[in-house]
Amino acid sequence: MPEPDAGGVRSVQRAVDLLALYDAEHPSRSIRELVSATGLPKTTVVRLVHTLEQCGLLWSRGDGRTVPGTGLLRWAELARNTWQLPEEALQRLKELSEASGGETVHLYVRQQGTRVCIARHEGTRTLRHVVHVGAEMPLWSGASSHVLLSRAERADVAAVAARAQHPGWEETLWERARQAAVQGWSVSHGEREAGVSGAAAPVFDAAGRLTGAVALGGPTARFTDEAVAGFTPALVDTARALTALDCIGGTA
Amino acid sequence: MPEPDAGGVRSVQRAVDLLALYDAEHPSRSIRELVSATGLPKTTVVRLVHTLEQCGLLWSRGDGRTVPGTGLLRWAELARNTWQLPEEALQRLKELSEASGGETVHLYVRQQGTRVCIARHEGTRTLRHVVHVGAEMPLWSGASSHVLLSRAERADVAAVAARAQHPGWEETLWERARQAAVQGWSVSHGEREAGVSGAAAPVFDAAGRLTGAVALGGPTARFTDEAVAGFTPALVDTARALTALDCIGGTA
Repeated sequence: MPEPDAGGVRSVQRAVDLLALYDAEHPSRSIRELVSATGLPKTTVVRLVHTLEQCGLLWSRGDGRTVPGTGLLRWAELARNTWQLPEEALQRLKELSEASGGETVHLYVRQQGTRVCIARHEGTRTLRHVVHVGAEMPLWSGASSHVLLSRAERADVAAVAARAQHPGWEETLWERARQAAVQGWSVSHGEREAGVSGAAAPVFDAAGRLTGAVALGGPTARFTDEAVAGFTPALVDTARALTALDCIGGTA
Repeated sequence: MPEPDAGGVRSVQRAVDLLALYDAEHPSRSIRELVSATGLPKTTVVRLVHTLEQCGLLWSRGDGRTVPGTGLLRWAELARNTWQLPEEALQRLKELSEASGGETVHLYVRQQGTRVCIARHEGTRTLRHVVHVGAEMPLWSGASSHVLLSRAERADVAAVAARAQHPGWEETLWERARQAAVQGWSVSHGEREAGVSGAAAPVFDAAGRLTGAVALGGPTARFTDEAVAGFTPALVDTARALTALDCIGGTA
């Protein structure tokens, strides 16, 4: 440990956390709002905002409010280049949704201790599962998480399970990840949110490394054993097709 | 100056610079490539990459290469929410391009010492001016820069001009910015690149603050005094229409 803040982790994390305070409900922020939302001293917030302005990540609008900066425009293109699925892959997600009778399809990748939705096809049912592209979900719950953890070491699963704050969750999560590995797919009911179910299957890259989980999500009332048995073959087929396309996280 | 690295400027700037190494030509990077491109010690690069992974800004693909992370997906949405012009404004850019006989139209905002293209309508001519959305251009050159500096203090213009590394440029830039302020538009020929011309007019927000410059760009051969006199009224009209829409950098 050569430095107290090795690699500037704290500064970069703070900068990212500050940017995370801007969203559809808060498209612009004043210094006062940022101080209140972060709990940081005003001088720290002012310096951080100044830094982010210098880097093009924040933009001062002239009325004392800041908005996400123009530097994000370049990053948006970068994100699109890396994560945008080819048309053929998106078509597969659509077909899976149709095969399931109109449930929503999501594609997740693991990002550290979370899973992130990188693509979706929204279902057609009135009551539907909605997770937006870019949204981070907990990795300790849900069928997609079982699948994303199906090649993980026990210690890794233990660290993820610790975030759940459910006693004994490590054992449950480990078993479900093991089962996902053995049967090649997983199903979950209300693990994260009561009444919400999911079924997921693994996607691999050309070298056989696990890269993602494709999932169907909807209300538990529609995810009966019979229904799940009905759409699991289409789910596993879709996962295989995405594996063949090798399109997660950009091409090699 | 209470801290050697107030606000973590250096760490955040390094992180941003590292991310800037990923582009269409370099969609993925190895540690070795990053060390070579940054000139930083390997241990520093490894720590920085680890930090960016923790923040979701880089993603390890499993083959020893990293790609821009899923965190950028959220930022892409943020950029879109803030900088995407309403359809009505985009229509105005298109109409201006048509009125000019097919030159490209760009809309620039100032971001610190640069101007950034936040919207465009590409021209129809074979030889056309192409600047992509998100691209940063120098603020010391071009008609758009004269306009964006037309309300700036002398010291500010001097600091911008210093980047040009042309002796005496401060006086020239100051005069052109003054002239843009007086006549309400500006024209430039070959200031940044020989053979490239531009004409620009200012866009304001509802409170009368200068927020952007709308510009026509094309080859100098087509930007004769006569041609410029011909399309300047349409240019100024477009700038006024964008002012009325008050749509730069999100709404208040």
